[in-house]
Amino acid sequence: MKKNGVSLSVIRRLPRYYRFLGDLLQNGVGRISSKELSQKMNLTASQIRQDLNCFGGFGQQGYGYNIEQLHREIGRIIGVDTMHDTILIGAGNLGSAIAAHMNFEKRGFRLVGIFDSDPQKSGEIIAGLPVRSTGELETFCRENHPTIAILCIPKTAAPKVAPQLVDLGITGFWNFSHYDLRVDHSDVVVENVHLGDSLLTLCYQVTHNRPEEDEGEK
Amino acid sequence: MKKNGVSLSVIRRLPRYYRFLGDLLQNGVGRISSKELSQKMNLTASQIRQDLNCFGGFGQQGYGYNIEQLHREIGRIIGVDTMHDTILIGAGNLGSAIAAHMNFEKRGFRLVGIFDSDPQKSGEIIAGLPVRSTGELETFCRENHPTIAILCIPKTAAPKVAPQLVDLGITGFWNFSHYDLRVDHSDVVVENVHLGDSLLTLCYQVTHNRPEEDEGEK
Repeated sequence: MKKNGVSLSVIRRLPRYYRFLGDLLQNGVGRISSKELSQKMNLTASQIRQDLNCFGGFGQQGYGYNIEQLHREIGRIIGVDTMHDTILIGAGNLGSAIAAHMNFEKRGFRLVGIFDSDPQKSGEIIAGLPVRSTGELETFCRENHPTIAILCIPKTAAPKVAPQLVDLGITGFWNFSHYDLRVDHSDVVVENVHLGDSLLTLCYQVTHNRPEEDEGEK
Repeated sequence: MKKNGVSLSVIRRLPRYYRFLGDLLQNGVGRISSKELSQKMNLTASQIRQDLNCFGGFGQQGYGYNIEQLHREIGRIIGVDTMHDTILIGAGNLGSAIAAHMNFEKRGFRLVGIFDSDPQKSGEIIAGLPVRSTGELETFCRENHPTIAILCIPKTAAPKVAPQLVDLGITGFWNFSHYDLRVDHSDVVVENVHLGDSLLTLCYQVTHNRPEEDEGEK
């Protein structure tokens, strides 16, 4: 299935290309052939050529890819150079870890507010930001206009918060709650991180002793 | 691409079926038609029938699915009823959150040890377990024979720890580090959680204002 002429599976590989090329850049590598890149990434060389051709292709036959140019171009396609103001809902174990652990700005997001329903948490500082009560959510959004929300709240809490956030102008969600946002909000952009599903997938693979396919085939 | 006659995309949907059916069970629902289930899951009814037919199918024409039976059967296929002893490497923000946040036993894993290279952390209690120094890793594994490792360590640390863990009998990894294990260890089972890639995928979707396809199509 395709949209904008680019299939979701290619889009899902873009971040991985971006990550690998970033590592190569850091290691001072200037050029790489699709063959070398394919070995590093556990994809076939033709797969890589195909993927990158979706975006115009950046290789010269026999010369390989200019890593800096390709990395910059893929970053541009992903959109890392535009910052999206982002709020985190739920400052529990997972929410705090996400806030402290992730390098948001490197990936096009600026964390501007952290909210938790537990008044005990108000004022706590996480990743340089004070935790606010969810009561302040409306005022904060009207003043600061964040467009992205990270949901680190229990599944039961999500159906109540999600519509409020959509009304307050949130158009994209990074969703760690097990609530399937898209079922009620087909118009927003949602990236789900279902850690429980991921663990069950590992369980299946261990049970059936089935090493995962190359990421490219995911 | 298929293996054991079941495609990876079907396998990736199994946890989601398991989760939805579990919720329905909790809500006391006994039966559901593929049509109702498809609406809830944002998949097509024929997709659902196809998927479940891979495992023999459990519906009777016109009667819908027996949720309890289907949930039990999918759980059995995933393998949640066998416990795999699991160790967590890296008790930083993310590792601690994962240990505290996840319900492992519900998903076929028993967390038996937590390790961190920082001696400061030794003795700290997380999820009822004391954090041990990575120096104890070898002795612990020889005595307790864990088979699964959760990697919540920096990418740079992973290439050193991974081979040691494989030598110590670890056959499956839940990998939060950005190190691609499969490149050096094609024989182990790996489920990667690349939070950074997930965030970049969200960035792409927000940039291109492109709501994600149904999870079923991932």
